[in-house]
Amino acid sequence: MYGLIGQMKAKSGSRDELIEILLAGTQNMPGCIQYVISKDVDDENGIWITEIWETKNDHENSLQLPEVQSAIAKGREFIAGFGARHELDPVGGFGLSD
Amino acid sequence: MYGLIGQMKAKSGSRDELIEILLAGTQNMPGCIQYVISKDVDDENGIWITEIWETKNDHENSLQLPEVQSAIAKGREFIAGFGARHELDPVGGFGLSD
Repeated sequence: MYGLIGQMKAKSGSRDELIEILLAGTQNMPGCIQYVISKDVDDENGIWITEIWETKNDHENSLQLPEVQSAIAKGREFIAGFGARHELDPVGGFGLSD
Repeated sequence: MYGLIGQMKAKSGSRDELIEILLAGTQNMPGCIQYVISKDVDDENGIWITEIWETKNDHENSLQLPEVQSAIAKGREFIAGFGARHELDPVGGFGLSD
């Protein structure tokens, strides 16, 4: 498995729109086990994306999918920037199918 | 829903032991939707815990469970410290039951 934690900052007032675009573009990605989008409770423009993939290649390939490319293109105007990014090796836990 | 991203640092060489203890103590927590433990790919002592709960109260109550208290007690000697901690409001995504 391969995991990612990534922080994204929406432009002020644009978080909900950006989340809608991200959700719509990430529902059907081969090798994706989980792709969860969350609001940061302490930052009104903060978004966290937590991803679990079967392999790192599956993640890389996803960036070329038409739906994902479209979401990136549509979302760009609402993104102020990116923050923390951590690559993970998920080892297990409750609620994670393997 | 309520989410948490937390970073933990194991003492040098103790990451696998600490992960085993954490995994064993977190399998049966009321209101827990997901509790995934991951190794940080870029930090040989780094651990990330990504949690999703039905409510914030469920998370707080979990800290009093005997299995969790036992894991905290057993794990303490292997923990060097804690890093980032972010409270989240998960809004959706692929692979997340609601």
